[in-house]
Amino acid sequence: MDNFIYSIPTTAYFGKGQISILGETLNAHGASKVLLAYGGGSIKTNGIYDAVIDQLAKAGITLIELSGIMPNPRVESVEEGIRLYLENGCDFILAVGGGSTLDACKAIAAGVMHDGPVTDLFVNESGLSDIAAAAPIATILTMSGTGSEMDMGAVITVGEDHKKMVLLHPLVNPRFSILDPEYTFTVPEIHSMAGVADILCHLMEQYFTPDVNTKVQDRMNEGVMMAVLEDAPKILADPKDYDARANIMWASSMALAGFQFMLGKPGFSFPLHGMGHELSSKYDMTHGVTLALLTPSWMRHTMKIAPQYLAIFARFARNVLDVREADDSKAAEEGVKRLEAFYSAIKMPANLREAGVREEDLDFMAEKAVERGNLGILTSIGKDEALQIMRDAF
Amino acid sequence: MDNFIYSIPTTAYFGKGQISILGETLNAHGASKVLLAYGGGSIKTNGIYDAVIDQLAKAGITLIELSGIMPNPRVESVEEGIRLYLENGCDFILAVGGGSTLDACKAIAAGVMHDGPVTDLFVNESGLSDIAAAAPIATILTMSGTGSEMDMGAVITVGEDHKKMVLLHPLVNPRFSILDPEYTFTVPEIHSMAGVADILCHLMEQYFTPDVNTKVQDRMNEGVMMAVLEDAPKILADPKDYDARANIMWASSMALAGFQFMLGKPGFSFPLHGMGHELSSKYDMTHGVTLALLTPSWMRHTMKIAPQYLAIFARFARNVLDVREADDSKAAEEGVKRLEAFYSAIKMPANLREAGVREEDLDFMAEKAVERGNLGILTSIGKDEALQIMRDAF
Repeated sequence: MDNFIYSIPTTAYFGKGQISILGETLNAHGASKVLLAYGGGSIKTNGIYDAVIDQLAKAGITLIELSGIMPNPRVESVEEGIRLYLENGCDFILAVGGGSTLDACKAIAAGVMHDGPVTDLFVNESGLSDIAAAAPIATILTMSGTGSEMDMGAVITVGEDHKKMVLLHPLVNPRFSILDPEYTFTVPEIHSMAGVADILCHLMEQYFTPDVNTKVQDRMNEGVMMAVLEDAPKILADPKDYDARANIMWASSMALAGFQFMLGKPGFSFPLHGMGHELSSKYDMTHGVTLALLTPSWMRHTMKIAPQYLAIFARFARNVLDVREADDSKAAEEGVKRLEAFYSAIKMPANLREAGVREEDLDFMAEKAVERGNLGILTSIGKDEALQIMRDAF
Repeated sequence: MDNFIYSIPTTAYFGKGQISILGETLNAHGASKVLLAYGGGSIKTNGIYDAVIDQLAKAGITLIELSGIMPNPRVESVEEGIRLYLENGCDFILAVGGGSTLDACKAIAAGVMHDGPVTDLFVNESGLSDIAAAAPIATILTMSGTGSEMDMGAVITVGEDHKKMVLLHPLVNPRFSILDPEYTFTVPEIHSMAGVADILCHLMEQYFTPDVNTKVQDRMNEGVMMAVLEDAPKILADPKDYDARANIMWASSMALAGFQFMLGKPGFSFPLHGMGHELSSKYDMTHGVTLALLTPSWMRHTMKIAPQYLAIFARFARNVLDVREADDSKAAEEGVKRLEAFYSAIKMPANLREAGVREEDLDFMAEKAVERGNLGILTSIGKDEALQIMRDAF
């Protein structure tokens, strides 16, 4: 096991009605003028917006609104947020939404303290951003999946080719996050299940690394994966199943809290995210869906070209998916099949073609996926490998 | 699932050689004069003391020493520490040792800010201490088991009858903890294994509660338990097995970090600790040993008088101990048997008699265990029940 630092700077207020602590907690953090950021406006129809306004008013906090942050958030939204924050003399950022709103707010938080374009702060997924200070952030999560409510990362879309750029620094960890499972009751089915696929992928990207005997981390990770596999179908059956929504929401947060499940492991690469981002860039496809589409073919690709890691895929199959098969190769393949069955059960598209991808775009996307360097930690994924994985998923 | 707050204020620096960050990290926390507390002096023979002194010197930090903190630490040590801290104008406390030293330092930290005897701050295990401020603490762990390196609790021994008193408050969470598995290489076998029993009990006390569908917490907890069961015997085989020592050390920290595995659960009671403390008070018995001695009979007692919770014990047996038995009652009993076999494998005494307990003391200890109120959360343990559990373990 390698050395590591474990740090969880975000306090989570979890459960129904936790919005009631918003005003006093902002006061305790010294907030007096808040940039309130949200997305398409659904929070105005489900009561969350009113509850936030009520809390801010009672706490004597004024607000500036930044609305309309879209899925796969663009740097233009970030720049608008930076301008609003600075022009109005804000001192705190409150993100209300899912991953897109939260990620945009993290970039705003770093951008308002940076003398230069916010794009200076973007990095490859394997390095930290050059950030010396950031405005304080809190989040109110309205959709489970991102993990952004408990981590130090953000993904922002830049340029005409919709390139996904990463911002990564402990200073953008939220100070606190309000996690109310009831807020996710009205999330549409497809987005709820894409969130589930996202959570699962966050867990798998940390799980599938060379084995350096990080047993506690891996066993905890397996536990969260099992909880996700068990409770996601319950949300399909009843979108207002509080306990299922609560378990999925807490799984989302645990999956990325302090990146706790990759601590002690060598290196850092989220290859499925690297490839999946290109699908989102090209087709504006929902993030979690891209991950579900690519995971099985990435697994088979890795098992084939790096058989020395077969034991890890077999362990996953046995410990998480209850595969009882002594042969590693057969166990691993059975694990992939069961995972495919799970994705099918949560209504993910069966393949890229079904998801609307055009075969003639694969080459371009494979090239873009690795333009800042090869992906992967079990194997090195260059353009040829990325293309093969996408073809196998087509 | 009940509402909860998740907060992990302690940063952990984990791995070999992490002592190298001590000086700069103390500087970053503004420490200039440190109360350095430790136990019987083993740190002077294994090099840890010298490394600490070297770090403090390089960082320009002066120190006042408090040595000789004994297992089952007494309030007199705490009072001496408070006096030394105040008389010398210290501004930080550095605890180097195991649970006893760490717990004593937490009480010192609260005591130096309290106008009155430190005993004012002790509570029943189910409530928070009345603490408004505490001196900052860091810890260097030399023994795995306590969990005190990542939590807000401390247990102090008071009076002629060696009563164990509890201090519990977020303000006494360590600011940071240095966790170097190599520091535990020379811990004697019996204390290493007592630490393992302590970790396992911390996990079980959080696991065995009414089922309110806290699936993520329970699955993560099961994962840590499995890691402990798997790696503890490796330490017996080779006390310098780095990965095994690392996994057990990280399990110790994860078990109690923010009490994360009982979040969302109803109430808070560590009945095995409540009864075990009486064995330590009466015989100065090692804490972890007392827990191993009582756990199986507590489990059978609970399964018998509260059969509505049999399913939880069966789940434990199946998920943690790999019991394959469809009948809950049989699965639960098989789980207890396998746990007994594990305790035997890590050389815990087979029963109270073998551990040197006198039968005529049982009644007294049972009465003391519940003198501040009944114990337990699955069942209510009064004097009669505590006596029965002790008799069954005799």
